[in-house]
Amino acid sequence: MPDVLRGAGVSPGAGHGPVRAVAGAVPEPPAGAPAEAGDAERALAALEAVAADLTERGERAAAAGNAEGRDVLAAQALMARDPGLADAVTALVAGGTGAARAVFEAFAGYRAALAGAGEYLAARVADLDDIRDRAVARLLGVPMPGVPVSDEPFVLVARDLAPADTAVLDRGRVLAFVTEEGGPTSHTAIIARTLGVPAVVALPGATELADGTVVLVDGTAGTVTVDPTGAQVAAARAAAEARASAVADASGPGATRDGHRVPLLANIGGPQDVEAALAHGAEGVGLYRTEFLFLDRTEPPGDAEQEEAYRAVLEAFPEGKVVVRTLDAGADKPLAFLPPPSDEPNPALGERGLRMARRHPEILAAQLAALARASAGQGATLQVMAPMVTEAAEAARFAADCRAAGLDHPGVMVEVPAAALRARDLAGEVEFFSVGTNDLTQYAYAADRQVGGLAHLQDPWQPAVLDLVAMAADAGVPCGVCGEAAGDPVLACVLVGIGVTSLSMSAPSLPLVRAALARHSLEECREAAAAARAARSASGAHGAARASLPGLEELGL
Amino acid sequence: MPDVLRGAGVSPGAGHGPVRAVAGAVPEPPAGAPAEAGDAERALAALEAVAADLTERGERAAAAGNAEGRDVLAAQALMARDPGLADAVTALVAGGTGAARAVFEAFAGYRAALAGAGEYLAARVADLDDIRDRAVARLLGVPMPGVPVSDEPFVLVARDLAPADTAVLDRGRVLAFVTEEGGPTSHTAIIARTLGVPAVVALPGATELADGTVVLVDGTAGTVTVDPTGAQVAAARAAAEARASAVADASGPGATRDGHRVPLLANIGGPQDVEAALAHGAEGVGLYRTEFLFLDRTEPPGDAEQEEAYRAVLEAFPEGKVVVRTLDAGADKPLAFLPPPSDEPNPALGERGLRMARRHPEILAAQLAALARASAGQGATLQVMAPMVTEAAEAARFAADCRAAGLDHPGVMVEVPAAALRARDLAGEVEFFSVGTNDLTQYAYAADRQVGGLAHLQDPWQPAVLDLVAMAADAGVPCGVCGEAAGDPVLACVLVGIGVTSLSMSAPSLPLVRAALARHSLEECREAAAAARAARSASGAHGAARASLPGLEELGL
Repeated sequence: MPDVLRGAGVSPGAGHGPVRAVAGAVPEPPAGAPAEAGDAERALAALEAVAADLTERGERAAAAGNAEGRDVLAAQALMARDPGLADAVTALVAGGTGAARAVFEAFAGYRAALAGAGEYLAARVADLDDIRDRAVARLLGVPMPGVPVSDEPFVLVARDLAPADTAVLDRGRVLAFVTEEGGPTSHTAIIARTLGVPAVVALPGATELADGTVVLVDGTAGTVTVDPTGAQVAAARAAAEARASAVADASGPGATRDGHRVPLLANIGGPQDVEAALAHGAEGVGLYRTEFLFLDRTEPPGDAEQEEAYRAVLEAFPEGKVVVRTLDAGADKPLAFLPPPSDEPNPALGERGLRMARRHPEILAAQLAALARASAGQGATLQVMAPMVTEAAEAARFAADCRAAGLDHPGVMVEVPAAALRARDLAGEVEFFSVGTNDLTQYAYAADRQVGGLAHLQDPWQPAVLDLVAMAADAGVPCGVCGEAAGDPVLACVLVGIGVTSLSMSAPSLPLVRAALARHSLEECREAAAAARAARSASGAHGAARASLPGLEELGL
Repeated sequence: MPDVLRGAGVSPGAGHGPVRAVAGAVPEPPAGAPAEAGDAERALAALEAVAADLTERGERAAAAGNAEGRDVLAAQALMARDPGLADAVTALVAGGTGAARAVFEAFAGYRAALAGAGEYLAARVADLDDIRDRAVARLLGVPMPGVPVSDEPFVLVARDLAPADTAVLDRGRVLAFVTEEGGPTSHTAIIARTLGVPAVVALPGATELADGTVVLVDGTAGTVTVDPTGAQVAAARAAAEARASAVADASGPGATRDGHRVPLLANIGGPQDVEAALAHGAEGVGLYRTEFLFLDRTEPPGDAEQEEAYRAVLEAFPEGKVVVRTLDAGADKPLAFLPPPSDEPNPALGERGLRMARRHPEILAAQLAALARASAGQGATLQVMAPMVTEAAEAARFAADCRAAGLDHPGVMVEVPAAALRARDLAGEVEFFSVGTNDLTQYAYAADRQVGGLAHLQDPWQPAVLDLVAMAADAGVPCGVCGEAAGDPVLACVLVGIGVTSLSMSAPSLPLVRAALARHSLEECREAAAAARAARSASGAHGAARASLPGLEELGL
């Protein structure tokens, strides 16, 4: 009888193949091991080998069309070859410290300098830790951290996946993701949905699966079957095929079975994402995250550059709408030219989003002006909204700024609990809401999206999140959802039942959501919403909603 | 015409006298200034002078009865005299770095080592920065950071006050506090209310007041009058005296004018706070913060020590009730023996409070057992509650743990928005709630209590906070408030009007709250609550509530 492990399914579909694990943390080399002859040479050789490997991986990334990945890796290689680092290692070994420990300590000094050198460089500390771990792993003879290399397709298993892990992933060879930590809004879940790869997260014992073990991952049910039978694999494949065919049949504008229209929109980071949005049938853009124009630069983008980036997206949807979110800097997205005013012990609770505009009104003014110029003469309807709006007074100020710039449809993100609780106050100031379920959940449950141990609280199925969405949807202005919740086909039906008027998601999620909506009446969605909100837990809400949505079975959901 | 500046009054009363400012940040010494002859000696002498000064201030603190302050300062002096630090300074000067810069850089290395040495030592980084700033200030000849020394009584003005500033304060000489940043829950506000000193925070331009300027601080109105007239000073004194006499007349159990009972309880940190609680007429303890038993230690307190600390408090209130909160570690209160499981980018949103009990059930079990033993044979009613409860399932587990330990009145803190939104679910599991308005406000408004620039959002008068309190008060179990909001005499009336059943606060706030309640009927409190909740901003809520509470004037409020 094959063993079935249960976690949280966060990206649907079935994957079947051998496990390959991402190696765990590289241990800290113990202090006190004395230097031996040749230690300096060994340490420097390890650094050079790491640099060479990074360069080589960068070339592979570039060859696979990932130029950005190449640049990141090339910059890491430069760090590994820094002469100051080599000098520090040599000095430490000369002082009697063994090779691995010398590398470890030399990086500590370098790391401190970097951490103190402003927000932009501080964000590079993680890169530095990766280089250190690679060099120390070589010297200690332990497995290299990071994603395994394999010629065969495999199921990637990890404690959790970081952006650095997935940037260099050979996407054609990954059958499924399985992680021990993480939740529906973790990086693993988002990247899995973006790539269309099945994924199960928060699976206890995942990292104890031995390399090579054959597993069947069901990203819909949230299960991992160890050594599955042929019949199990065949049944999972059949369900996946049924879903694929149902999805292929769903096209056209989003609507419930009885014709209640729900525009289905795409979340994008810039013009480069427009093609995928159109390919998956997006009716427009529900969330244009403009911070990607501002990240990794030492000064703000120029007026013409901004205008061009906005116009390119507007032109792609001549009959649709495009919702642009103004710069959401701060928290996990620090900007080199816009550091927070002080050390923030909890950046997620700090001066981020629209709050920064109080100190730097010129950045918002330039962005609004560029948006106004870009929208002139366009067929698309441009709507502009601000992130992290909390009080009615902030909404009023933002709306006035928009109107002064000639932008007539101001809106706000609802992602702070107070904004949802006081949605009626905010609705008096703006023309629409867009609910960001990821941050809303994080704040309502006081549970950091980046902490795996709190994944059970970061679930958008949590009933209090549904309550807050209902308050926003009930405030008298159109209310979309642009958080990860919108891309979950079951939750999408519940949100429509709550009264949400549009759904925006990563483009690959659109077909399945369209198919799920098309199989249910508005009344069924409302019943599912009521059942979910009557539950006392996230899993209870999920189960109750599924039981009210009979059409899910046809989709293998 | 005297100039009147407006901020937020956070501790009532009037203070009149000359301004003394806490010096601002010590600048970073520029790199590149070459070492001069004698720089090593100058740098080492500066460190020694700082150490001597810290020791001397420690002795003064001890003489003033503040043994804890002495210990903190003595530990800082030890750091300043660390031979490793002296070696690093000497080496840097030998390498050509000037004295001030050498001190600055030597501390950077020391700081990095400390920051990497686990949570407990990491929390000492701020102490280290203070020592560095003192030594650098001496070498650069700029004003010494920290609280000024003065033989005359003075009004203390600062950007914001840290615990380190107030620990060594000569309490007899401070007439009032005025800060440019901070909010009602900032350290400045809490310490001012505890000391009974008038305070105005969030006052723009406060730090531009020149030393020696005479000001009149009205901590009730939130104003600072520059060069006040004699008549203004006399009027402020008369109002303060009227309040003092009204307060002196209020005694006995807490109740509205028409006899609606509202027990008035004290927030305490241990047996040492019992005397003040009794002196101010506390009817019991509404919040016993047990973490002070656990902080600054390398292992948990022993069973007998815990039992004794709990019994001492229970014995002090033979006819009252004592509400004990189980260990609330994590976030800004890290424990050496209980580090968070991973680096937390936002500790306030991390594994804190009851969430830690999932990983360390033995600590909670030992605490519950000690509480059960301490309560045997006592007249006081013991109630035990858990911090940071979020879901109904957590409340159920905690209640089961309490009952298994023989503790029959389990309750939970309501300080996470989801817990308030789902208060009815939680009410099915426990016997009472206690609302922590400080954290509840922080999460509902996504605004860190430690970030001065967000003070306007951290205000418990914010209408969404009142909405959340109403949800908790309306869930069917007794619901107290133990956050700072309970100690604001105006807000206390509003909370009673919302349906809150008891109020717990720092002991010095009790008499004024008792007097304010005694001057209003329950109906007036309800009208004030409805008026406040109908407002769209914190200041609007405050103004509307005051207008509904006619008895405030008699109290000079």
